[in-house]
Amino acid sequence: MPDQPSYEQIAYEVEDAVLTITLDRPDRLNAFTSRMMFELIDAFDRADADDDVRAIIVTGRGRGFCAGADLEAGGDTFDASKRGAGDTGDREQDLDRLRDGGGRVALRIYESLKPVIAAINGPAVGVGATMTLPMDIRLAGESARMGFVFSRRGITMEACSSWFLPRVVGVSQAAEWVFSGRVFPAQEALDGGLVRSVHPDAELLDVARGLAREIADNTSAMSVALNRQMMWRMLGADHPMEAHKVDSRAIRYMGASSDVREGVESFLEKRAPRFTMRPSADMPEWYPWWEERPFE
Amino acid sequence: MPDQPSYEQIAYEVEDAVLTITLDRPDRLNAFTSRMMFELIDAFDRADADDDVRAIIVTGRGRGFCAGADLEAGGDTFDASKRGAGDTGDREQDLDRLRDGGGRVALRIYESLKPVIAAINGPAVGVGATMTLPMDIRLAGESARMGFVFSRRGITMEACSSWFLPRVVGVSQAAEWVFSGRVFPAQEALDGGLVRSVHPDAELLDVARGLAREIADNTSAMSVALNRQMMWRMLGADHPMEAHKVDSRAIRYMGASSDVREGVESFLEKRAPRFTMRPSADMPEWYPWWEERPFE
Amino acid sequence: MPDQPSYEQIAYEVEDAVLTITLDRPDRLNAFTSRMMFELIDAFDRADADDDVRAIIVTGRGRGFCAGADLEAGGDTFDASKRGAGDTGDREQDLDRLRDGGGRVALRIYESLKPVIAAINGPAVGVGATMTLPMDIRLAGESARMGFVFSRRGITMEACSSWFLPRVVGVSQAAEWVFSGRVFPAQEALDGGLVRSVHPDAELLDVARGLAREIADNTSAMSVALNRQMMWRMLGADHPMEAHKVDSRAIRYMGASSDVREGVESFLEKRAPRFTMRPSADMPEWYPWWEERPFE
Repeated sequence: MPDQPSYEQIAYEVEDAVLTITLDRPDRLNAFTSRMMFELIDAFDRADADDDVRAIIVTGRGRGFCAGADLEAGGDTFDASKRGAGDTGDREQDLDRLRDGGGRVALRIYESLKPVIAAINGPAVGVGATMTLPMDIRLAGESARMGFVFSRRGITMEACSSWFLPRVVGVSQAAEWVFSGRVFPAQEALDGGLVRSVHPDAELLDVARGLAREIADNTSAMSVALNRQMMWRMLGADHPMEAHKVDSRAIRYMGASSDVREGVESFLEKRAPRFTMRPSADMPEWYPWWEERPFE
Repeated sequence: MPDQPSYEQIAYEVEDAVLTITLDRPDRLNAFTSRMMFELIDAFDRADADDDVRAIIVTGRGRGFCAGADLEAGGDTFDASKRGAGDTGDREQDLDRLRDGGGRVALRIYESLKPVIAAINGPAVGVGATMTLPMDIRLAGESARMGFVFSRRGITMEACSSWFLPRVVGVSQAAEWVFSGRVFPAQEALDGGLVRSVHPDAELLDVARGLAREIADNTSAMSVALNRQMMWRMLGADHPMEAHKVDSRAIRYMGASSDVREGVESFLEKRAPRFTMRPSADMPEWYPWWEERPFE
Repeated sequence: MPDQPSYEQIAYEVEDAVLTITLDRPDRLNAFTSRMMFELIDAFDRADADDDVRAIIVTGRGRGFCAGADLEAGGDTFDASKRGAGDTGDREQDLDRLRDGGGRVALRIYESLKPVIAAINGPAVGVGATMTLPMDIRLAGESARMGFVFSRRGITMEACSSWFLPRVVGVSQAAEWVFSGRVFPAQEALDGGLVRSVHPDAELLDVARGLAREIADNTSAMSVALNRQMMWRMLGADHPMEAHKVDSRAIRYMGASSDVREGVESFLEKRAPRFTMRPSADMPEWYPWWEERPFE
């Protein structure tokens, strides 16, 4: 078992192949900070490197998911020129001061090799809402309230949400929520396609774990990792031929693998599969098939 | 207060920060003409330059929204070689004779800095339907009937609707409506995701005004203008990193602005915000961040 | 009447301008083979060249649509190195051995000039599900069961489904189905936007034929052919100006054609249109407006 990392503003717990990341500043409704950003990025790095993690649940401690940026600094909150560098001692922070912090988290989640499920317990506002968009599945508790409130704060949408939100809920629904900046209840999030389903708060984590287990119990980690990258990457591709090129290589690679043999044989034998390939070590040599897109 | 423009085929009325553009040829079910095209483009130019306009409603005079192209010329209606140039005296008209008129309007709406709400009262057919696609929110009265009837007229879809329609309603629903060319009632438009909601005809404009007021009363005009461009532009971007680049600049710019200070302070003080920045004058120097895409 | 082709694994029947392609290996639940791939590609070539075909229905013989890849070869099924070349004698098969077969079919359907309706009768799993994604409309019988089961077989998604599926059902729904690999009933397919409607099995083909007839009876084959290509191609375009360029040329071309004259005149005269233009011969000289995207 790998060392449990010690984070200050999130909790990281692996149980039965499911990692639960809990935003953990309950006295501030888990408001987002620069430190939380670095811890989240590190947690997703760690999850990708750990073959014992098959799926990831992200939720919040206490009575909310994430209240958005911590407004403790008041009107200076978003003023980069007044923000101190180096409170984590991370050298990248200085080089990357020009970057939107929510976007750094969103891009890291986009790149995840493991499926990510948001379990939205209570308020998820601003970056608390936008950070869930590159997650694969969003579940809401009945007490969830969400809002893309940027226009009401005199700021702009962030965390790459101008890219993700119209792709998740459609451009018309995205426009109404972003332009009005309204905070809305779980039912409106469900009707608008932002969350998959709404559950009693007490059952929310159980439903999330059920979905995570369905993946962990039945599927090849390699297949899921490749499929996740294929689908998110092809969302930006201009022609299905780009998918065909990658499909063809992936089918050849996995088609000659031990996982496909086990998958087909277990299916024909009507028994549960025992997949053994590891995303940490068994990715094909042509992976990744894309060039990293630099920030510039 | 700026001069009220004098148009022939549309009405332009600003009240309480909401511009209502009314297609105004009720004896022809507001059928679209070359003159209406120029007037609509001018109206959107005027609205963007007028900081007193916070949101735009587009509707039709009388018993319909827009019956599509005016078919007065019969079988010659769509024959460019038989269309007279210069009936508005605008030199551009000659240079641009090769361009689809509905598309010129659609592209102008796409570029709007203000949110655009379609209040679809009665029939909206052909360009009467496609011109609403780059609008942000579509509301329908109970008497609305819509149709992408091009295949039934022996013509092709226009107004960039091959780009907009699949993004608004999904490619499968778009295909069924475009290939069949059927005219369908408000309920089918709602079920297919083409309109957000259906209302008794007598209440349609009030609902549209309510949405417009929600934006005007609560949000920063600068935030909304930047967010609108970010969202529509990123709908065509191939990677969320493109959003991250723009987000990061926009967050830095607005994050040090008077609007964000007002937005955060009014929120913390639980009072209504008084935003003062003006899209006509206060756009960042890096705006627009794209190169204009030429017609060629 | 053109010769009825003789296929082994599909049936090809034209009646009243509607082609029905039936996957025809009922003893194997119409499982997909290399031969079926070549026959399907040939059938779509033939349909495009035949002006008597106005719409295409794809369905399965017997108690299912398509069970996916034929797993007769067990764990070797997907291993390209063990697959014999040349069982159809087609030279392309050797050159194209590196290509995913489902993707070759999907790309051919994407390029179709005729609307394609899937009538999903019973199980449609793996390539049986993904081959329907580039079809325009999917109808399900009550006995339909669908599944993107790749992760459960230790293989990756194919047939360009990483491109098509998120565009058809949204990325979040796509992710849940692909990562879980679950097989789900018609109702879940309907709720998730994968099929347009669900029908009693005995009525499924009649509903499909009704939609096909609505297109065949009312529309210009030229309009539909151009609209279909415009819409699917623009789904990958990065800016609505790309649509405007094509729209403008298409409107000029069709606007001066005999089909638009008939379409407008029949509409004004309130009679059924009699369109005469033929996609096999009357495409504009600038068609196709794109360069073919090579496999490489």
